[in-house]
Amino acid sequence: MKLLIQGGTVVTHDQTYVADVYCVDGKIEQIGLDLNIGEVDDVVDATGKLIMPGGIDPHTHMQLPFMGTVAADDFSSGTAAALAGGTTTIIDFVIPAPQQPLMEAYHQWRDWAEKAQCNYSFHVAITWWDDSVHADMKTLVEDYGVNSFKHFMAYKNAMMATDDILVNSFSRCLELGAIPTVHAENGELVYHLQQQLMEKGITGPEAHPMSRPAKVEGEAASRAINIAGTLGAPIYLVHVSVEDSVEAIKYAKNNGQIVFGECLAGHLVVDDSVYQSKDWDVAAAHVMSPPFRPKKHQEALWNGLQSGVLQTTATDHCAFCAEQKAMGKDDFTKIPNGTAGVEERLMVLWEKGVNQGRLTPNEFVAITSANTAKIFNLFPSKGSITVGADADLVVWDPNAQKTISSQTHYSKIEHSIFEGMTVNGMPDTTICAGKIAWQQGSLKTAPGDGQYVKRSPYAGYYQSQLKRNELAEPHAVER
Amino acid sequence: MKLLIQGGTVVTHDQTYVADVYCVDGKIEQIGLDLNIGEVDDVVDATGKLIMPGGIDPHTHMQLPFMGTVAADDFSSGTAAALAGGTTTIIDFVIPAPQQPLMEAYHQWRDWAEKAQCNYSFHVAITWWDDSVHADMKTLVEDYGVNSFKHFMAYKNAMMATDDILVNSFSRCLELGAIPTVHAENGELVYHLQQQLMEKGITGPEAHPMSRPAKVEGEAASRAINIAGTLGAPIYLVHVSVEDSVEAIKYAKNNGQIVFGECLAGHLVVDDSVYQSKDWDVAAAHVMSPPFRPKKHQEALWNGLQSGVLQTTATDHCAFCAEQKAMGKDDFTKIPNGTAGVEERLMVLWEKGVNQGRLTPNEFVAITSANTAKIFNLFPSKGSITVGADADLVVWDPNAQKTISSQTHYSKIEHSIFEGMTVNGMPDTTICAGKIAWQQGSLKTAPGDGQYVKRSPYAGYYQSQLKRNELAEPHAVER
Amino acid sequence: MKLLIQGGTVVTHDQTYVADVYCVDGKIEQIGLDLNIGEVDDVVDATGKLIMPGGIDPHTHMQLPFMGTVAADDFSSGTAAALAGGTTTIIDFVIPAPQQPLMEAYHQWRDWAEKAQCNYSFHVAITWWDDSVHADMKTLVEDYGVNSFKHFMAYKNAMMATDDILVNSFSRCLELGAIPTVHAENGELVYHLQQQLMEKGITGPEAHPMSRPAKVEGEAASRAINIAGTLGAPIYLVHVSVEDSVEAIKYAKNNGQIVFGECLAGHLVVDDSVYQSKDWDVAAAHVMSPPFRPKKHQEALWNGLQSGVLQTTATDHCAFCAEQKAMGKDDFTKIPNGTAGVEERLMVLWEKGVNQGRLTPNEFVAITSANTAKIFNLFPSKGSITVGADADLVVWDPNAQKTISSQTHYSKIEHSIFEGMTVNGMPDTTICAGKIAWQQGSLKTAPGDGQYVKRSPYAGYYQSQLKRNELAEPHAVER
Amino acid sequence: MKLLIQGGTVVTHDQTYVADVYCVDGKIEQIGLDLNIGEVDDVVDATGKLIMPGGIDPHTHMQLPFMGTVAADDFSSGTAAALAGGTTTIIDFVIPAPQQPLMEAYHQWRDWAEKAQCNYSFHVAITWWDDSVHADMKTLVEDYGVNSFKHFMAYKNAMMATDDILVNSFSRCLELGAIPTVHAENGELVYHLQQQLMEKGITGPEAHPMSRPAKVEGEAASRAINIAGTLGAPIYLVHVSVEDSVEAIKYAKNNGQIVFGECLAGHLVVDDSVYQSKDWDVAAAHVMSPPFRPKKHQEALWNGLQSGVLQTTATDHCAFCAEQKAMGKDDFTKIPNGTAGVEERLMVLWEKGVNQGRLTPNEFVAITSANTAKIFNLFPSKGSITVGADADLVVWDPNAQKTISSQTHYSKIEHSIFEGMTVNGMPDTTICAGKIAWQQGSLKTAPGDGQYVKRSPYAGYYQSQLKRNELAEPHAVER
Repeated sequence: MKLLIQGGTVVTHDQTYVADVYCVDGKIEQIGLDLNIGEVDDVVDATGKLIMPGGIDPHTHMQLPFMGTVAADDFSSGTAAALAGGTTTIIDFVIPAPQQPLMEAYHQWRDWAEKAQCNYSFHVAITWWDDSVHADMKTLVEDYGVNSFKHFMAYKNAMMATDDILVNSFSRCLELGAIPTVHAENGELVYHLQQQLMEKGITGPEAHPMSRPAKVEGEAASRAINIAGTLGAPIYLVHVSVEDSVEAIKYAKNNGQIVFGECLAGHLVVDDSVYQSKDWDVAAAHVMSPPFRPKKHQEALWNGLQSGVLQTTATDHCAFCAEQKAMGKDDFTKIPNGTAGVEERLMVLWEKGVNQGRLTPNEFVAITSANTAKIFNLFPSKGSITVGADADLVVWDPNAQKTISSQTHYSKIEHSIFEGMTVNGMPDTTICAGKIAWQQGSLKTAPGDGQYVKRSPYAGYYQSQLKRNELAEPHAVER
Repeated sequence: MKLLIQGGTVVTHDQTYVADVYCVDGKIEQIGLDLNIGEVDDVVDATGKLIMPGGIDPHTHMQLPFMGTVAADDFSSGTAAALAGGTTTIIDFVIPAPQQPLMEAYHQWRDWAEKAQCNYSFHVAITWWDDSVHADMKTLVEDYGVNSFKHFMAYKNAMMATDDILVNSFSRCLELGAIPTVHAENGELVYHLQQQLMEKGITGPEAHPMSRPAKVEGEAASRAINIAGTLGAPIYLVHVSVEDSVEAIKYAKNNGQIVFGECLAGHLVVDDSVYQSKDWDVAAAHVMSPPFRPKKHQEALWNGLQSGVLQTTATDHCAFCAEQKAMGKDDFTKIPNGTAGVEERLMVLWEKGVNQGRLTPNEFVAITSANTAKIFNLFPSKGSITVGADADLVVWDPNAQKTISSQTHYSKIEHSIFEGMTVNGMPDTTICAGKIAWQQGSLKTAPGDGQYVKRSPYAGYYQSQLKRNELAEPHAVER
Repeated sequence: MKLLIQGGTVVTHDQTYVADVYCVDGKIEQIGLDLNIGEVDDVVDATGKLIMPGGIDPHTHMQLPFMGTVAADDFSSGTAAALAGGTTTIIDFVIPAPQQPLMEAYHQWRDWAEKAQCNYSFHVAITWWDDSVHADMKTLVEDYGVNSFKHFMAYKNAMMATDDILVNSFSRCLELGAIPTVHAENGELVYHLQQQLMEKGITGPEAHPMSRPAKVEGEAASRAINIAGTLGAPIYLVHVSVEDSVEAIKYAKNNGQIVFGECLAGHLVVDDSVYQSKDWDVAAAHVMSPPFRPKKHQEALWNGLQSGVLQTTATDHCAFCAEQKAMGKDDFTKIPNGTAGVEERLMVLWEKGVNQGRLTPNEFVAITSANTAKIFNLFPSKGSITVGADADLVVWDPNAQKTISSQTHYSKIEHSIFEGMTVNGMPDTTICAGKIAWQQGSLKTAPGDGQYVKRSPYAGYYQSQLKRNELAEPHAVER
Repeated sequence: MKLLIQGGTVVTHDQTYVADVYCVDGKIEQIGLDLNIGEVDDVVDATGKLIMPGGIDPHTHMQLPFMGTVAADDFSSGTAAALAGGTTTIIDFVIPAPQQPLMEAYHQWRDWAEKAQCNYSFHVAITWWDDSVHADMKTLVEDYGVNSFKHFMAYKNAMMATDDILVNSFSRCLELGAIPTVHAENGELVYHLQQQLMEKGITGPEAHPMSRPAKVEGEAASRAINIAGTLGAPIYLVHVSVEDSVEAIKYAKNNGQIVFGECLAGHLVVDDSVYQSKDWDVAAAHVMSPPFRPKKHQEALWNGLQSGVLQTTATDHCAFCAEQKAMGKDDFTKIPNGTAGVEERLMVLWEKGVNQGRLTPNEFVAITSANTAKIFNLFPSKGSITVGADADLVVWDPNAQKTISSQTHYSKIEHSIFEGMTVNGMPDTTICAGKIAWQQGSLKTAPGDGQYVKRSPYAGYYQSQLKRNELAEPHAVER
């Protein structure tokens, strides 16, 4: 399969230049001005457009069994949405039920993901602890290309990881060269506040943000960072949504710790006024955790992205339709948590980031793909445009305009948190594994076209981390 | 009993003036220049000296049953030491064993304290939770003058309070107008590091600080503050010893939260080099938690006191003699944790605070008595020199010099963490309840002379706290 | 003159208790429950009311010659307004024209102030430098009770003090035990932005805040603090209005420097939307420097007051009537800068501070009088309720309600920046120098009743400052 | 000229991979595994070694006329030293005397630099202001490839730029797409402290750091950043040496401002104890501005580099020999300010950065060349290893060891601030413009081999800056 992209402006995380990009059998084979290529299978005219690495969304939950139902977008519809938005790789999550063997859960998810239409990879959640978990983590890293493990500090009585589990698992991650990631919310506090609100008769979606105030997240962020720092492990915080967490990351980084932070397109542009909607369905459609926040936190997130305190963006795409949301009609704690977004992420970030002068186009690439690829050790195969890299690309039309709507999105649900937002700049063509996957409104892939992506342990930053730990011995515990 | 203090300079937390102070039956009856008083029982000549409120040490553990032994200074010897150092009131701790009824423990401690020689009061620790604890907290507040409850976030498998206990107890404190206090160290991390160090064969006292690095405290400080902040409760952190905790308090205060911080005289002037002593006994004598710290943390503590981020000073006086310390000869985790200091606190703070230009004499009074009295609702009965206040005073000689030594201290143990320090400024006379309790080297009290001090709930800052909580309703969880 | 205040609740910066207060010949003679006093000249019934120290406003400009006109409120009307609002002492400013001898200016202002109706004192501005200024500063401190000197970092081509003047004057202050104070705005930037805006044709009051953005103040605050810190001098920042300045003060305090910050009642509650008024007069009426700010800065100021980063509140009362403001009809740089407020400060702070749970009543006293008295060395004569103190008091009715309006205020101008604000809590009676000065709407004083207040050098904090400087020698320049 | 580098590991700022690098006529023509190249002119065996972009030192002063003498290393010896250390490009400074036309000074420096042996470029200093300066800045940007202008905030009575100059010049830079850079020290304070120290008889080199304490730099850093931020201009701070400056940069970046910070190899590893040397020559040899600092500042600089608050490293190479230093024998203010280092920078940073786990090899490249190239708009021609880029490379031997000594360095002076430091990792071969310039101890270039490097305005970050400024209009002055 030979594909030639002609006449575009290549934009990577650190360069901008005019060039053609020639892809053969899924890899980038040549990059250059006016490439003289013979016969090809397909040509994309990128004149007046930008050629960027395809987006990597490090945080999605396709067909997740959760809160008594299953997320509406499965690996097929969800990845179709991704491609339509210029994202060519997702990193989803294997989430074992407490006591479920990790390998069993892993295979279950791999099975479900067979129908994916774009590249996919998996973080694996650590929801409980025993010797088998300890052993399976090694198997996953060494044999299955998993280099990151997720920990939920929320969801008491379900998948919450208490401090003893965090300590054990972070230590194990460090031994394996994998990176621990955390959903930072204090589960005990959430549980307490939920009870309190229900007792007071505050049962609607408006109670949801009240049960998860900023300090609940800031606390857990600080805890996770300090535990990792004490053990000498790097750490990655998913969906940072409040200034408190940004401050915790900043403090640690400024004291020499290796910490990464992700934020969601949704948290950057949607605020907590949505929970005041008089339409229950609309308010409930926005129920996700962490919730949407007062505006001042959005400013903190943008500043974090601009200054490098935060490095990646994601969506936490976990779509539930209105019928599913209605399970919590009388009890907000039963509303399935989650919103969509995998399709809109790049457009939203371009509109509110690049078009507002908050990000250069290069920085846009950094936070939508390159940084994620580096942290999860996929760079430069993914997240770059270099000879030999995977031909996962998006041809971006900075002049095209579109108004986001659930009427037209690929997700199966009836709602979009970005409904009505007009964006200037959107994908023209998405190329996945060297083939046109989506172009000007048409999906060209079929379920099963997506490939599983293995990720090796010991990403670059481990070099520093291990050297520091070694120098700290036997005072291994404080620098 | 009529006592006249003549010719001194009264120094309170906000005033300095020359006056006589006349005390009758335990209260201050008159303050003025050249008071014309008739016959009195006793006269103290304070010419060239300062008259200050007697010290209040809000953190002592006399005859504490701990780690398989009992602290060597009982309520008699410990309070004698206090008086010799100008401290007239201690707030000790009732620490119920897990599952032990609070009231039972309370009465046990009251019984032990009968032999105290200075004023004493009790914080009560919450080490477990059930309905009886919930009920007993009310009884203690309403009937026994307890307005503060302590929570140990360390000491796993012993008295550690997990997050669910913290949430329940802080909430209960708020209902009762009492203030929750915390020993902030992450018990899971300490436990993990202790195991790890023992496994590596690092078993001596030098392992102690390695098992409790700064982040272990910083984490817990942040957690406790955020939990309190979420619930709308004020909070008090005992023995803040690292910059990380100071930063956590500062951040919360600067965001409008009501947070108080205490630091120990020991942490202000002794650093972690003591654990490198080749003499096991010396190193072990310094084993306490949190441990002594690298010097940079001392600077942070002093700055915290100067800028008002920290408000009080204490000692955590919990004395173990060499024989007791030897219980951990082969295993540092078994060395009883604790050091003395109740006698030396004021002298050390004067020498390193006032004489170094870090504190004015007024600020000295603020951090050794007045602030503590305000926080624990004893002001102005204690911590002030005003007509009607308790006649608990120290006549201070700023020109006297002394070298601190275990040879001469009142504590029963063979070691002093301040050994050899020469101080300029020390008590001349300590007056407790209107009587001379200690004077120029002679103790004038007897066991049992000390009085129990009741403390009412709803200290001044509760006015703001409750108004804020009320205004926050029903959005009770975030401002 | 004997005055008895009966049945009130005394509220000072650190105590609250029921008592009568008995004043004789301008001093407080007795404080106690149910005082048994014989015949008196006057009685104030304070039942159900609070007795607090009279307010001290450390920042007013009565009849200031400025920008080609003279402030409308002179020392008579301005101090009448003060009394009506519970303020019994103002500290105004002597501002020599460049090259004008300090003593000449001083005497001029003293002369103008003869008609004052409440207590008054003077800061003296240093607007230029030569040997005579150096000499006159000493005379002012030693013979005339001046212990503070003001420096304008703004107003280029007028009274702006450049860095060389700041360095010389701060050094001189330190030698004399006086405190330097600064108006922190970078005059060069303001000048540049004014020119730029005028060139763009943006000439109305809306341009005023655009010419003085937050960084302009933050820069100067940081500069003044660092210059003082380098020289080993304490420093006081007037009218801190932005988060940037609060941060600069916090940073310095947390590093051990002695820095004080004042904020204005106006900046705490009025935001920059006022400059968008379509009524030129209304917008112009709000022109003052620093200007009113976006709301986020208000939150920073409140947090600063609550956490102790800021210590005092003032008004910068400098009233210009509409006709005067109209001088800048076509050029916003010619609108006389200034607003009123000396009458409303206490009411506004009670309503938005105490009634909102941001401040306790004791903290209210601290920031409206006691702290100011301490910093400018008037405590405890002023700012306290103690036997022997000046009988400057306000009897406060926390249950009375009033709506602020220029229709009813004492200021001569037609506008109030607090117009229409309803406050709960206001003065019932103001007592100045032991006499009823204002009561329930009636002014009882006459021009000339006010007394000049001398202030001694070497306030309490100088003890620490000088000891630090001494210990730093010969490395006098960095700790 | 065809040069093949074989068998090395290419290390760029974001990639590490094994490859040959083939250079033709000064450009990189191919990069790949086992390149099959025909006949070449030269081969470098890089087996077991790293191939990295040649260092870019953005801060040198060769043959600078300064303080009555001329820096000992001219453009020939200085650039020879650079090449010996793996640095292939320097950015030096044209420094017009006050009133000297910019173009005249520029041509003078170009003339001096003719003998350079490596690539060179020029920042131009703005030391005074009039219309000709305004005009010449444009000429320099548009015709001579200058995209950065330097401002000295120190050196009163010499080249100090006062605030009015800063405001004018920063504004002009913004119009031209050039970046303003600053030497941040408050010149008035330095002058005052110098006078004061001389008056006290403290005249030796030990007085030098006392005359330039940390706050002197922190103040100026904050001022420059706020002025730039107010005007909407990006800014670059040279030789950041204290925590105060790091904090100022961090604060601005975290609030969305575009600020860059450089630090010197010397400041990272040499502390202020050098000024206590009893050997006057040794102490004087370390006199440079800003001076070497107490150790805590080094930690802040390293943390700044690791967390991205600082982006570049340099040397401020400005070498004076002992005889020149002796000009200040009796007056430290006359000791020519400057030290060498252009040769040692990369080795020192590898040893103390990479070998200590503070930096990965990729981060090492980022801070020694790539980031500098991006900021000054040379990337990817310089600072990268990509096809088409300039063939400026260093073949690095991570296993070679060397002890730094003035006995063996290329600089003409008798002293090295890194004397005696043993480094593990050093250049094997330096390639400049596609030719071997230095190899294993032998310099292969001749004076005049170096090329002048033009730099275009409007580096990448200007895209965001201008968009922000545009969106801010007409509220151009605050976001």
